[in-house]
Amino acid sequence: MRQLFELCGEDRAICFSPFVWRVLFCLKHKGLEFDRVPAMFLEKSEHGEGGIPAYPTLRDGDNWLSDSLEIAKYLDHTYPENPLFGSEAAEGQAQFLNNWFDGTIVMGLFPMVAADVCAILGEDNAKYFRETREARLGRTLEEAVANRDQAAEAYRASLGVMRGTLTQQPFLSGDKPGWADYAAAGPLVWSRIVAPDFALFQEDDPIHAWFEKMLDLFDGFARNAPTVA
Amino acid sequence: MRQLFELCGEDRAICFSPFVWRVLFCLKHKGLEFDRVPAMFLEKSEHGEGGIPAYPTLRDGDNWLSDSLEIAKYLDHTYPENPLFGSEAAEGQAQFLNNWFDGTIVMGLFPMVAADVCAILGEDNAKYFRETREARLGRTLEEAVANRDQAAEAYRASLGVMRGTLTQQPFLSGDKPGWADYAAAGPLVWSRIVAPDFALFQEDDPIHAWFEKMLDLFDGFARNAPTVA
Repeated sequence: MRQLFELCGEDRAICFSPFVWRVLFCLKHKGLEFDRVPAMFLEKSEHGEGGIPAYPTLRDGDNWLSDSLEIAKYLDHTYPENPLFGSEAAEGQAQFLNNWFDGTIVMGLFPMVAADVCAILGEDNAKYFRETREARLGRTLEEAVANRDQAAEAYRASLGVMRGTLTQQPFLSGDKPGWADYAAAGPLVWSRIVAPDFALFQEDDPIHAWFEKMLDLFDGFARNAPTVA
Repeated sequence: MRQLFELCGEDRAICFSPFVWRVLFCLKHKGLEFDRVPAMFLEKSEHGEGGIPAYPTLRDGDNWLSDSLEIAKYLDHTYPENPLFGSEAAEGQAQFLNNWFDGTIVMGLFPMVAADVCAILGEDNAKYFRETREARLGRTLEEAVANRDQAAEAYRASLGVMRGTLTQQPFLSGDKPGWADYAAAGPLVWSRIVAPDFALFQEDDPIHAWFEKMLDLFDGFARNAPTVA
């Protein structure tokens, strides 16, 4: 029994969490079968053994895990074939990368797409989301999304280290995709699902070319994910 | 025959290059014996087979290597015991980290210590260093070093991702030091050697505590390195 509890919108086919997408990629990388259980922000108490703490939560038999990096390490230890990390040092390095990805890729995107997230949640969940996220942002979701195209320029500039790396090697994990690629791509899939018309990267950007490869992986698994209409 | 060609000052005991220090740590990590060959900026043509391209250059038997990350990968492939990376993914991730370390740790430090470097080179090398580095900086070494204490505050702030990681785990490579730690510490040893009175970090900074551990490694190898008087 392997289940992934994922955040969804009012339309339960729209599964958009950046952190869940990291895990979806990792599960596909390992070639594991799993049931997807879409659930809304306010439905955490209805799942698991007395509620789940966060999305993603992975149930793998008797094991319950809830942090995307912890899940990736668990998968690599439990199913070592086709490594995501493959060594202690890679797992250690991943903590720095995870912090950078969260602080730069996720947090940089958040103000630009939060209003789009809110729009697909349905009344109660949207109310919860707006209240908690506006407190975090210190401004309304509408204020945060204003001048998005200008903000995207600063966002692209903030990703210079990642862009430079992708001119030196095909993937962030080297010659083949691994955890670092999935952890970086998850948030970009999030943006693609909730704001499909928002072009984050220019066509000649090495990040764009890399992300297209990420969308193609596993028979276009991320490319074919349902997006907002 | 294993030789490390390292950059030195007019006093050939002062070996300060941040990139060389990365390799020194890696060689000690592997427990390898090697001869240290100190050489000045303008002496590259006097070494190797018709000159060496850069410091560090490692000669390991018939193999000559000159980039600190390439040398680290070579050492891990050639002497796999006690891994620096231990997996393809770790080596892939290292490129991103190397870019961040170079762009943030090294380049951030450079204006703050370049005048100190220049002061220990001896006349001809100092002239070469000043001309090439001032062109790169777009200002004099003296202008670059002005307000160093204020600059150090911004520098410390720029290392937030690294600081956060070191509150989550003892080393950048996880529970044990590895390449990522050596690559990050090398530039800090550089500062310590050329500007030993310049306190980069406050005592309660997790980076300070980690760097003290780095100085202690291998019987205090970096701590005992000769510094400017």
